[in-house]
Amino acid sequence: MNIDMIRAAAGRLEGHARRTPLLNSPFLDKIAGRRVWVKPECLQHTGSFKFRGAWSALSALDDATRARGVIAFSSGNHAQGVAMAAGLHGVPAVIVMPSDAPALKIANTRALGAKVILYDRATQDRDEIGARVAAESGLTLVKPFDDPQVIAGQGTTGLEIAQQAAEQGIDTAEVLVCTGGGGLCSGIALALEAEAPGLTVRPVEPDGFDDVARSLAAGAVRRNDRLSGSICDAILTPAPGDLTFPILARLCGPGLTVTEDQALQAMAQAFLRLKLVAEPGGAVALAAALFRPDDIAGDDVIVTISGGNVDPAMFARALTTLETPS
Amino acid sequence: MNIDMIRAAAGRLEGHARRTPLLNSPFLDKIAGRRVWVKPECLQHTGSFKFRGAWSALSALDDATRARGVIAFSSGNHAQGVAMAAGLHGVPAVIVMPSDAPALKIANTRALGAKVILYDRATQDRDEIGARVAAESGLTLVKPFDDPQVIAGQGTTGLEIAQQAAEQGIDTAEVLVCTGGGGLCSGIALALEAEAPGLTVRPVEPDGFDDVARSLAAGAVRRNDRLSGSICDAILTPAPGDLTFPILARLCGPGLTVTEDQALQAMAQAFLRLKLVAEPGGAVALAAALFRPDDIAGDDVIVTISGGNVDPAMFARALTTLETPS
Repeated sequence: MNIDMIRAAAGRLEGHARRTPLLNSPFLDKIAGRRVWVKPECLQHTGSFKFRGAWSALSALDDATRARGVIAFSSGNHAQGVAMAAGLHGVPAVIVMPSDAPALKIANTRALGAKVILYDRATQDRDEIGARVAAESGLTLVKPFDDPQVIAGQGTTGLEIAQQAAEQGIDTAEVLVCTGGGGLCSGIALALEAEAPGLTVRPVEPDGFDDVARSLAAGAVRRNDRLSGSICDAILTPAPGDLTFPILARLCGPGLTVTEDQALQAMAQAFLRLKLVAEPGGAVALAAALFRPDDIAGDDVIVTISGGNVDPAMFARALTTLETPS
Repeated sequence: MNIDMIRAAAGRLEGHARRTPLLNSPFLDKIAGRRVWVKPECLQHTGSFKFRGAWSALSALDDATRARGVIAFSSGNHAQGVAMAAGLHGVPAVIVMPSDAPALKIANTRALGAKVILYDRATQDRDEIGARVAAESGLTLVKPFDDPQVIAGQGTTGLEIAQQAAEQGIDTAEVLVCTGGGGLCSGIALALEAEAPGLTVRPVEPDGFDDVARSLAAGAVRRNDRLSGSICDAILTPAPGDLTFPILARLCGPGLTVTEDQALQAMAQAFLRLKLVAEPGGAVALAAALFRPDDIAGDDVIVTISGGNVDPAMFARALTTLETPS
């Protein structure tokens, strides 16, 4: 896993993934007490950065392997990314999703042409289901984060951040990244190490699901006690991966956490000031920038909004955190 | 008023206005029955295209004139554009706004550093107030649309559309533009005439406020009967302007109209499929593309989302038009 793989992935993504802009707002700067720069991966195809890793992985397969199709396990954003990347490559995709995943993400994955297999998290073994289906059809598993080509794809976000920060004259800043298994975080960190070493990555997680922050503090992998019970469904993972953790440990940290209410308030600010739709898990980095300013250093902070696939009711709930302007 | 003024405005806007992307979604294509390309000016500074025209007008003034400050009449988006452009130039701005303008737009205009003077549409004469204030302070009026440098600034949107359409291999398409007084519409039309003559502009208005559509049909300026009573507050104007109408008549049409409910449904689709926040008046062109497909020609249609400054309650109302996915 190295920078050359990320640069190669960027070449394969050219003309397929979107180059998202780097946005800001004087209103956000005022809340944060420093300049806040937002990398809105909610504007990426399928509404999250996951399309980058999925396209990278699919496009790296040899033709015969890819033609048999791919399989993925995902509660949502990775599912949609793999479904769309497979559809654009003209190959079949099977997605194994928990039956309690957000309805919007299940519906989108189906509409993008994938076959969706739902399972009950409490009573069924996801891996057993997946192994059986994959064996029957000769499908290739596309892991959500612990795969070199997936990390390489997510890392293309970091290549863009390096270039866009330079255009703004920023050579030193913390880069806050919404983090589940660490694919986006480790990919961005590798890209910045090579292209913008003054930009340092800090993972952001929801309170109570801070496996990465605790793992970084301990210097060894720590697991979450539970895998549900947060509105930040996109970034709930058991533990950092075998590939991602060594990269995170070498380049990133310390981790930050935010409350669910702070994530909802950040969604509302993204609505109000950037005209962007963020999902709760995609808003935790912006939440840290806005509401934990004393834990951040520097005149500039860069944050990812990693996804925007949120049900309307949850979005309406976020908007209720706004006071009516007077 | 000519293409050279638009090109000159693009030079002045370089590094100040955002180059917004051109976005699409297979879900929108399916609803519309053709490929739909969205130019999201809601992502522009201050949340609407109006920043382009305001920056163009301010940057075209001589230093001494600009230093005395500017004044504008606006229910909202032009107000915010002028306020921010004046602030960035370091000169004072006075904005005369109706007291029933959306609370968010009034609050934003003040927060951007402008002095806001509210008036009662029913009992007070806006022009009298403005003339008195302008005379007292030597302020220069920045008109919302009927000004060559404002039209030139809005026209830079058209230069970007021409280039982005070419990148997608599109040389023939209708370009649907949310239209009030016609500043954006006429500016885009002039830019496309020069840079992409196969792209033709059609104005889109709300039902009951279709002064531009009726003016184009009649070949002479027609006025709206009323100036309030629509949720599409951003694009309610009495009639096309002295400068804009001849351009519209020469290059644009026929006009399209949509219902308020269609505008709300388009806002919901922009939320769901593009992760963008559109205001009602900014969503009418997307609404026409999605819900009036039989009145549009061609395999591709390009639409502007002209602004995203919407109060949370109105946005929540738009989201209620979505069925829960199943």
